[in-house]
Amino acid sequence: MTQTLGFIGLGKLGFPIAANLLESGFPLHVYNRTADKAAALLAKGAVAAATPVDAAVPGGIVVTIVSDDRAILEIANEEFCAALGNGVHISMSTVSPATSRTLAERHAKYGGQLVAAPVFGRPEAAAARKLWICASGAAAAKEAAKPVFDWIGQGVFDFGEDAGAANVVKLAGNFLLTAATEAMAEASAMAEKNGVPRAALLNMFTSTLFNCPIYVNYGKAIVNAQFEPAGFNIPLILKDMHLVQKTASDARVPMPTLNILIDRYLTMMAKGLESYDAAGICLGAAEDAGLKW
Amino acid sequence: MTQTLGFIGLGKLGFPIAANLLESGFPLHVYNRTADKAAALLAKGAVAAATPVDAAVPGGIVVTIVSDDRAILEIANEEFCAALGNGVHISMSTVSPATSRTLAERHAKYGGQLVAAPVFGRPEAAAARKLWICASGAAAAKEAAKPVFDWIGQGVFDFGEDAGAANVVKLAGNFLLTAATEAMAEASAMAEKNGVPRAALLNMFTSTLFNCPIYVNYGKAIVNAQFEPAGFNIPLILKDMHLVQKTASDARVPMPTLNILIDRYLTMMAKGLESYDAAGICLGAAEDAGLKW
Repeated sequence: MTQTLGFIGLGKLGFPIAANLLESGFPLHVYNRTADKAAALLAKGAVAAATPVDAAVPGGIVVTIVSDDRAILEIANEEFCAALGNGVHISMSTVSPATSRTLAERHAKYGGQLVAAPVFGRPEAAAARKLWICASGAAAAKEAAKPVFDWIGQGVFDFGEDAGAANVVKLAGNFLLTAATEAMAEASAMAEKNGVPRAALLNMFTSTLFNCPIYVNYGKAIVNAQFEPAGFNIPLILKDMHLVQKTASDARVPMPTLNILIDRYLTMMAKGLESYDAAGICLGAAEDAGLKW
Repeated sequence: MTQTLGFIGLGKLGFPIAANLLESGFPLHVYNRTADKAAALLAKGAVAAATPVDAAVPGGIVVTIVSDDRAILEIANEEFCAALGNGVHISMSTVSPATSRTLAERHAKYGGQLVAAPVFGRPEAAAARKLWICASGAAAAKEAAKPVFDWIGQGVFDFGEDAGAANVVKLAGNFLLTAATEAMAEASAMAEKNGVPRAALLNMFTSTLFNCPIYVNYGKAIVNAQFEPAGFNIPLILKDMHLVQKTASDARVPMPTLNILIDRYLTMMAKGLESYDAAGICLGAAEDAGLKW
């Protein structure tokens, strides 16, 4: 792989993804707001980009994975889109579909294309190249992005040409995993207060009817009540739930379960538990039932 | 297998379970409130019991799988417990833990033992001997029940000596599967109104993060919007949700997600959709979002 690749955002997911791309032989131009996070990659041959625009190699591919809508809209500004020209921007952040559509329009002015490509997987999965990728955008751009996807994930699901579609799917997935965790938490509280330990309960379900990654992994977190260090912290999951809420609300879709989830995370923030993992939502049902986990 | 077995309740799950036990060589004494449901089993060698008490062979094993708490408390009355004597009653109905404890006490007066053994699996799974069984009760009684369990299920999970424990687990499971379906329904409504067909959405999740039986099967029901004939109809699932509510409430456990599920099923009853399958809960989120599925 000799095509030069720009990479912006070395957070919990971005760093292992960038490291894998570098290892695959992509010449990597990396930018991160906090420059020292790039040190380990520079030591392995990555080139430091002084600004996001420097990472947007003209006509090339640039990958971004940053914290929120505001950050990506600032980074991928007019100057950035002009620099990338007719290249491809692979946007992996979890942002609103509206933001992806705005970015796609900006790039189009300069002949460029956006692929929205949010991913599913915790940092360990990113390190192990086991991410699941949702992709949407112009067909040619998705084709150009394929070597990147192949190197970092275990599979790509194509949601068509609308740049926002992949973000809709990503938001739906984060809602589903949070709803699943809340349901396990409520069931566990009910079981424990009726004499059935949550470990026995969840071990059964996660090895039978619910033997899938989300229930297995979040079920383990509930049983062990270990929420630090966070792979996916409370402010980030709350940001995602607010994106689901906005996306649902704009399209006139009442989501009563979502309201419960948002209140749970607001309560965690109110109690100063920002540093906990998203799985910590289970503490709400336990505490409301008078349990100490 | 030569031990005579009583069997009471030839409903959607009871019938295939009884047929499998008969096929395994258990001499079967069957009782059903509606006698003609037994005809196919009698033709294959089962013996008709004129009353529930006739099915309680002294010192033997009797299996019951009936619709609700009232039914099992009426069937397993003092006369029935006296007739069974020091035998074992395997109670597979989805009932409250309190009811199982009451039955265990009744049997104890006559030297008998109760094994609460509610099962997970739809009628097809019962026919294929693929049920998952939750068992609780006295160790010796569970040991006696083992040949029955081995013949009808793919695995048994032991929740200890408290007769009510297995019912707690069963109720938790029915809550989890209903909560999962509601979450898929809300996510699907959000996705569809944002241009992503629910089939594309759920096909991705049920083959990746949620590739487990509940999401696969109920996801299929949501995608196809086919809710008749019901494997598990609305009045039965609503009865179960009310049992979860009572069990949680008695133990002082608020379950906010449960309240949403109960309201969804009440609305289905209000609209005359009693004959729909439990998976039909997904129509609530769709209809509230102005979608026609």
